[in-house]
Amino acid sequence: MKPSPELLNDVLDEVRPLIGQGRVASYIPALEEVPADKLGVAVCYNDGDIITAGDADEPFSIQSISKVLSLTLALQNYGPLEIWDRVGKEPSGQAFNSMIQLEMEHGIPRNPFINAGALVVCDLLQSRLSAPRQRMLEFVRDLSANPHIYYDKTVAKSEMDHSDRNAAIAYLMRSFGNFSNEVMPVLQTYFHYCALRMSCVDLAKAFNYLANKGLSLGAEKTIVSHTQSKQVNALLATCGLYDGAGEFAYRVGMPGKSGVGGGIVAVVPGEMSIAVWSPELDPSGNSLAGTAALELLAERIGRSIF
Amino acid sequence: MKPSPELLNDVLDEVRPLIGQGRVASYIPALEEVPADKLGVAVCYNDGDIITAGDADEPFSIQSISKVLSLTLALQNYGPLEIWDRVGKEPSGQAFNSMIQLEMEHGIPRNPFINAGALVVCDLLQSRLSAPRQRMLEFVRDLSANPHIYYDKTVAKSEMDHSDRNAAIAYLMRSFGNFSNEVMPVLQTYFHYCALRMSCVDLAKAFNYLANKGLSLGAEKTIVSHTQSKQVNALLATCGLYDGAGEFAYRVGMPGKSGVGGGIVAVVPGEMSIAVWSPELDPSGNSLAGTAALELLAERIGRSIF
Amino acid sequence: MKPSPELLNDVLDEVRPLIGQGRVASYIPALEEVPADKLGVAVCYNDGDIITAGDADEPFSIQSISKVLSLTLALQNYGPLEIWDRVGKEPSGQAFNSMIQLEMEHGIPRNPFINAGALVVCDLLQSRLSAPRQRMLEFVRDLSANPHIYYDKTVAKSEMDHSDRNAAIAYLMRSFGNFSNEVMPVLQTYFHYCALRMSCVDLAKAFNYLANKGLSLGAEKTIVSHTQSKQVNALLATCGLYDGAGEFAYRVGMPGKSGVGGGIVAVVPGEMSIAVWSPELDPSGNSLAGTAALELLAERIGRSIF
Amino acid sequence: MKPSPELLNDVLDEVRPLIGQGRVASYIPALEEVPADKLGVAVCYNDGDIITAGDADEPFSIQSISKVLSLTLALQNYGPLEIWDRVGKEPSGQAFNSMIQLEMEHGIPRNPFINAGALVVCDLLQSRLSAPRQRMLEFVRDLSANPHIYYDKTVAKSEMDHSDRNAAIAYLMRSFGNFSNEVMPVLQTYFHYCALRMSCVDLAKAFNYLANKGLSLGAEKTIVSHTQSKQVNALLATCGLYDGAGEFAYRVGMPGKSGVGGGIVAVVPGEMSIAVWSPELDPSGNSLAGTAALELLAERIGRSIF
Repeated sequence: MKPSPELLNDVLDEVRPLIGQGRVASYIPALEEVPADKLGVAVCYNDGDIITAGDADEPFSIQSISKVLSLTLALQNYGPLEIWDRVGKEPSGQAFNSMIQLEMEHGIPRNPFINAGALVVCDLLQSRLSAPRQRMLEFVRDLSANPHIYYDKTVAKSEMDHSDRNAAIAYLMRSFGNFSNEVMPVLQTYFHYCALRMSCVDLAKAFNYLANKGLSLGAEKTIVSHTQSKQVNALLATCGLYDGAGEFAYRVGMPGKSGVGGGIVAVVPGEMSIAVWSPELDPSGNSLAGTAALELLAERIGRSIF
Repeated sequence: MKPSPELLNDVLDEVRPLIGQGRVASYIPALEEVPADKLGVAVCYNDGDIITAGDADEPFSIQSISKVLSLTLALQNYGPLEIWDRVGKEPSGQAFNSMIQLEMEHGIPRNPFINAGALVVCDLLQSRLSAPRQRMLEFVRDLSANPHIYYDKTVAKSEMDHSDRNAAIAYLMRSFGNFSNEVMPVLQTYFHYCALRMSCVDLAKAFNYLANKGLSLGAEKTIVSHTQSKQVNALLATCGLYDGAGEFAYRVGMPGKSGVGGGIVAVVPGEMSIAVWSPELDPSGNSLAGTAALELLAERIGRSIF
Repeated sequence: MKPSPELLNDVLDEVRPLIGQGRVASYIPALEEVPADKLGVAVCYNDGDIITAGDADEPFSIQSISKVLSLTLALQNYGPLEIWDRVGKEPSGQAFNSMIQLEMEHGIPRNPFINAGALVVCDLLQSRLSAPRQRMLEFVRDLSANPHIYYDKTVAKSEMDHSDRNAAIAYLMRSFGNFSNEVMPVLQTYFHYCALRMSCVDLAKAFNYLANKGLSLGAEKTIVSHTQSKQVNALLATCGLYDGAGEFAYRVGMPGKSGVGGGIVAVVPGEMSIAVWSPELDPSGNSLAGTAALELLAERIGRSIF
Repeated sequence: MKPSPELLNDVLDEVRPLIGQGRVASYIPALEEVPADKLGVAVCYNDGDIITAGDADEPFSIQSISKVLSLTLALQNYGPLEIWDRVGKEPSGQAFNSMIQLEMEHGIPRNPFINAGALVVCDLLQSRLSAPRQRMLEFVRDLSANPHIYYDKTVAKSEMDHSDRNAAIAYLMRSFGNFSNEVMPVLQTYFHYCALRMSCVDLAKAFNYLANKGLSLGAEKTIVSHTQSKQVNALLATCGLYDGAGEFAYRVGMPGKSGVGGGIVAVVPGEMSIAVWSPELDPSGNSLAGTAALELLAERIGRSIF
């Protein structure tokens, strides 16, 4: 049985009191200015049904959620060894932007969802796509069936103005021979991907391929193979929430990916994709009320991969 | 459709050529002497059906697989905060017995399946159970419906003779106030648990509660609550295979727990528990052919949580 | 020209206002109870002249200063390779009791003046001396010409009651094969050495051999060779002040060794040994006013090895 | 008594058999091509006497020895707090280019002689000197009384082509707010300094100010104050030889600074400055035969600060 909009509204109402207990990302002004009380959820069933509540149609900065999309583009353009020789598949057990582990492991990032790993993936795309930014835009517009998705140039520029640590990460990987292109253009691509503005509805639609054996919403296109969709879900389950993946699996029980814009996408394989949005973050950098909403929703609809 | 014994035999035949490519655990003689060509698998369905192939009835040293059983005993005897204030729920991103992370995180182990975390769990049991070793024996004999399960005293003694690193870990946690009992008795308990001898059949039966909403095989007893069974599976999926959890999720797609004796248990929630055994280990310390057998089996029977 | 007692008194008066800005060691009660306003200095010239000021005759817990004495006993009883294969000669760049570096460097401590290194030295003494505690007592009584030096049993017992971290360090080294004896007896020896009670006068006399080519005060005995005395001074200069060795060299310009009891010994090779005492410590664990007194004294008497 | 040229020749003859046991730096071709059998020494007394042996007049790439010269320029242009708030004075206990410590210590390098610290010093010079490269050239030409000292442009360019790790270090410090200028121009300055070509004679003359209370050779100019010369010597003694400072103090007993070009300068305060050159390096990155030559020379002439 599918949840009613009322059930989704109830879930949002129950978690709304958490707003005020987290902190909106503040490292760039464009994120800091987002109202802390935004709260939205969208559920996209594999049959195309979409149920929403709250601010589900309002676009926000998807940030690290884009790391799944860039990995997916890489899976479409590279063989598995070309990717997995350069980035691992293991949880990092460290803060998302730590360089310590990267140095100890000789420039091979732990997984594609920490910054270092996503930068390697962008380096791959930079090498093989003629216009990696335009390609991504076409890709997400197509997945979400929304031609109005765009890059927030203010966010991208602001990220670039605060890019020293990511530049350090990229140069460190270059020093180990695990970065092929000039650093700055890849950072530009990476920050544009992070600066995609999408709504919960856009995201739930876009990620439905992970719930539906790799097929796009409506099953018209194969985005990745069924095996690959399971593999991406496995990576999300173990590495998708920074250093809070274990807690998320324990509480929510779904593969997911968060961004510091406050969005989280989650997947119930074979059934549905879900997106939530609440800008305040917990200490691990994941949406505080968003995680609580997913936990509650999972319980109410009786879904868990475990 | 349940797999036939033939299918299981085929799986074992296909992975058998891998034997010779891994290394049998050699840190204690009792493990080193196990023949490298042992290979077995047992599948236990929630309805009680058991299908086996190879050396499925031969007992072996379950080693770290016991960490799930000791956590389960702790869940039966302590409230959640009493446990999760003292041990985390996150992957470690480090070798299973690293002290570096433990020092940096002030004596709180990352999760209950690395050595430090399992020692904290044993410390908890030592504090509250009058006879923790006897209690465990009763528990697993009951779960497996096999009164002949016992501790291999040679293995336990040998572990105790090579216990310096685990003693160091326990003393370090004690220095941070996260260890209540004398170190040596807890190590004795811990090494006895590791020295349990069980067959694939024993293990598949014993772990069926994680596939069946927390109910014992035959559903006569509640071992843990349904929620707790999902939580334990979540911990297994993110932390159950040392520093190879991501790779295992990627390849096998089931929650699982390995031991350096070469055993691995895996869970298909709602359906079945599986145990495999092959003594040679990969560089992460997980059974090499055992992982391959689970990967192949998962593909053949079309099961994955992702 | 030798300093007058007035000059020493002036130095103490000038640094006395610093008292109140540091913190007395508080990890065991016996140290915490020492009055914070104790302040003393003793200078021992190679010709036997001793000049003092303040609380120079009052015994205190020498703590880590004993690490130089135990190393000296080891130099008398072992060949250089037997020592330097088991402990390094490099600064640690880490807190004095960190286990991180010890694990990364496979159980070989960086130098003999961090806890791990001193424990290895005690392990060496335990193996070769029939009564290592009695031997040390005879040694320091002889060096200081003071038969009343003794172990503070309250301090030794209190240290033993808070020995978990040092036990962890010793067990970690044992796990790497760099510790031969049972851990607890070596810890007992180690804590007794730390619990030696000596005054500034005792210490200045005892350490004169490092200022006088390895000869005891009065030049009657060879404690170590001239070359060894230079080597020990070199180790003190680079590793003698925990993670403040660079700052101490920069400010004071003499080889030295501190203890958390607030004592510091310093050496002007060819001329004199100095001991100061002020219980309050700086964040690196070195006597705050004691360091300042040595800095001022060095400037006033125009002495520096640099 | 000053050593005769014969004594210096004897020293070189005794250490020459070591050639073949080390490895010439190979990370850039320009260094790799230097003949491994070059061997030279120059001693410069404070009275101006210069005694040499071997290839003492042949210029080579001074590499990290330049870090002392850039620090000296910084001391001439900045107040102490302006420098020491941004770079520490402690040994690193890590490889010279490790980023791990730099991240853990929030972008403040341990000391001015590891790469990170020298980059901060160059960042300081870049901010305050109108032409930092020209200024350095004038400075060393003046110190060495040799107008023919120049930058090896091939080496500088080659370093810049392999600058990824140093760029990573600089960007990491920038991300912590401890780097003011654009990264690439500072790297250009830094690599030019490293690419200075000087002979043993040039170096012994240039560094005489550290042996002579801060005065230039001939005592005509004050390069740094007497106190500052002692402070720089203190830093050299504790931090001047990468992760081999303790061993160097133990064996040689003089403040010193090495470079991967195979040069080492050493100081006997109040008496003389010494430079040696032998291109093959030990595992710590210090000249293998050069260190041995200094050890032997110190013994023969009976000099040590300890």
